[in-house]
Amino acid sequence: MEAIYLDAAATTPVKPQVAEVVKMMMTAEFGNPSSLHGLGVKAEKEVKKARSRVAKSIKARENQIIFASGGTEANNLAISGLKKPCGHAISTQIEHPSVLEVLRKLEEQDQRVDYLGVDFQGYIDFTELEEKLTSDTRLVSIALVNNEIGTIPKLDEIIKITREKAPRALIHTDAVQAWGKYPLDVQKLGVDALTLSAHKMGGPKGVGALFIRRPELLNPLLQGGGQEDGLRSGTENTPGIVGMGVAATLLPSQEKMIAVEKIKEKFYKGLKEKWPKVKRIGPGTGKGAPHILNLSFPGFPAQVLVQALSEEGVYVSAGSACSSRNEEVSYVLEALGLEANLLRSAVRFSFPENISTEDAQEALRRVSKVIKRLEKVMVNV
Amino acid sequence: MEAIYLDAAATTPVKPQVAEVVKMMMTAEFGNPSSLHGLGVKAEKEVKKARSRVAKSIKARENQIIFASGGTEANNLAISGLKKPCGHAISTQIEHPSVLEVLRKLEEQDQRVDYLGVDFQGYIDFTELEEKLTSDTRLVSIALVNNEIGTIPKLDEIIKITREKAPRALIHTDAVQAWGKYPLDVQKLGVDALTLSAHKMGGPKGVGALFIRRPELLNPLLQGGGQEDGLRSGTENTPGIVGMGVAATLLPSQEKMIAVEKIKEKFYKGLKEKWPKVKRIGPGTGKGAPHILNLSFPGFPAQVLVQALSEEGVYVSAGSACSSRNEEVSYVLEALGLEANLLRSAVRFSFPENISTEDAQEALRRVSKVIKRLEKVMVNV
Repeated sequence: MEAIYLDAAATTPVKPQVAEVVKMMMTAEFGNPSSLHGLGVKAEKEVKKARSRVAKSIKARENQIIFASGGTEANNLAISGLKKPCGHAISTQIEHPSVLEVLRKLEEQDQRVDYLGVDFQGYIDFTELEEKLTSDTRLVSIALVNNEIGTIPKLDEIIKITREKAPRALIHTDAVQAWGKYPLDVQKLGVDALTLSAHKMGGPKGVGALFIRRPELLNPLLQGGGQEDGLRSGTENTPGIVGMGVAATLLPSQEKMIAVEKIKEKFYKGLKEKWPKVKRIGPGTGKGAPHILNLSFPGFPAQVLVQALSEEGVYVSAGSACSSRNEEVSYVLEALGLEANLLRSAVRFSFPENISTEDAQEALRRVSKVIKRLEKVMVNV
Repeated sequence: MEAIYLDAAATTPVKPQVAEVVKMMMTAEFGNPSSLHGLGVKAEKEVKKARSRVAKSIKARENQIIFASGGTEANNLAISGLKKPCGHAISTQIEHPSVLEVLRKLEEQDQRVDYLGVDFQGYIDFTELEEKLTSDTRLVSIALVNNEIGTIPKLDEIIKITREKAPRALIHTDAVQAWGKYPLDVQKLGVDALTLSAHKMGGPKGVGALFIRRPELLNPLLQGGGQEDGLRSGTENTPGIVGMGVAATLLPSQEKMIAVEKIKEKFYKGLKEKWPKVKRIGPGTGKGAPHILNLSFPGFPAQVLVQALSEEGVYVSAGSACSSRNEEVSYVLEALGLEANLLRSAVRFSFPENISTEDAQEALRRVSKVIKRLEKVMVNV
């Protein structure tokens, strides 16, 4: 029985073309880009090409891309690298830990932070945003796509309000779950900084990038040899960077992701028919990210479901893979204000770009089978 | 003409067995270790195995190993992650930038730092160390092997003096150039923290590790999902980590590195015979790291030599690959107090573990050829 992977929001397999180039950069082209000899120069050229490819994928300029060790470091860099004084920052209660935990640490250093609440679908309230913004607000950080429930906030509205009330604020967005899910254009988006991660989109783990419109606004987090124009020291992870560059050229078309979304909706509809008690969490059909479907199976603890599904060859997540394994209910779900028994039973299905209708139907059969089996053994259903 | 790579201190090719396992972790075993399903659990197990292998290579315990994105991050973590108050720190003038630049940044935050001077072979003065140490000294950071000239300070003496004068000090050593060059045993060494990098020893770029005897002494640098026991957030770079684990099992034997050193000495002797003006910089025969040979070719600017040698198929470095490409003379060489024309002509030959006598002899022929050619065209020789 082949496993069906529905945990693409946690990570994705590296695409064959990417794996190939990573291997090439590890072996034949293994030079250190800082070396002046032939191998070093070649490595430097490959990094430059990758930078250009990643920049192009979001319509940025090459010198606005800083490679880092992943989305977490890029988020940390955008937020805690911002030159002082930061004054006041605004974020939401449902950001990724790599945003929230940095902000909490900055709070210990006297930065004031407001974490906006969200409604039951994960949307912020624009009135609350407007109220919290002050001329002292220096940072607004709100993800393009929430990683657990797929909510896509109206960024154009957020930016409009922010520019009016806090013209000095840097607007950062964590686009880790958005890259490759729909076309990104930093000019049209109007953000000042944007985070990408390679491994969520067929690239290698251990590499990510920060788009920063004005690099001079940042201090580096890591000190050392001054790589990445002084903004990220450390020997460049050339296999990772070049792999991310290739992944950037292989992002799925919008048509493909629309097809993924259709498969996802069909999966949900099928499940709802077989087991009407299932409840969708997050934004509904046609809204939200194409690949994320958060479902609650009332009565079943999420972790029990995840493990039973794993045994049946369906790989999904309880909450996000990014938070601690021990948390019973994720803070993202808690922020939605839904009743606790719904939250404890929430499972995230996240569909890879290459999901087939057949695999999704097979997954549906397996999920139904697991639910039926668990219904017999669980007491409280 | 096949190029001969004598820049192993800058980086090394990934070993075939390592490249194989990296590929496996990118494709078949691509799971996120935080995922609870089968693929996640497998990835977590592989990371655990790698941690055990890296720990074993330096006789540490598994829970004392923190994986990071490389030597630079590990050095940064050891120094700037140290819980406050830091008070006073001691280092040397010839440390890697990822140590020096962090300390300089901490100085801006009122940490006091003394950078010990070195003699013309790169050794510190124990009397100076003793004088600078106070009961307030909380950190001593001195590399096990200097990356440009190969000096190995007498760490046992440094530790003895430090423990006596500053019992609260954490003793950190950057062992990036020492791992695999001779056996390392953190118990015998007696250090509290030690930095490793995978790519200097046949492992992948983008991954390194910090040994820390008492992890509770550290704060994380990166905030987020709480991976690595809360000390290094971010989805684990599983291909890199597992690759580093395999590299740790493939470190060359001491006999092999003694053979490398013999080849290096023969190369130096041969060059000296052909061109007696060449001057060795750093510690002499039998002292210093087995793989590093820093030579000055008076009259020839180092960068000209490096490029001419590259064209002739010999890959070496001017200074270290880790510092800026634009620096004329590295601060490490400047600290030695040698005359400027010697320093401007210093080239680092660093021998890979698989160097053959034949390749070294061929390199010698090519170096001699380049020198002869340059002698004819250069005016000031």
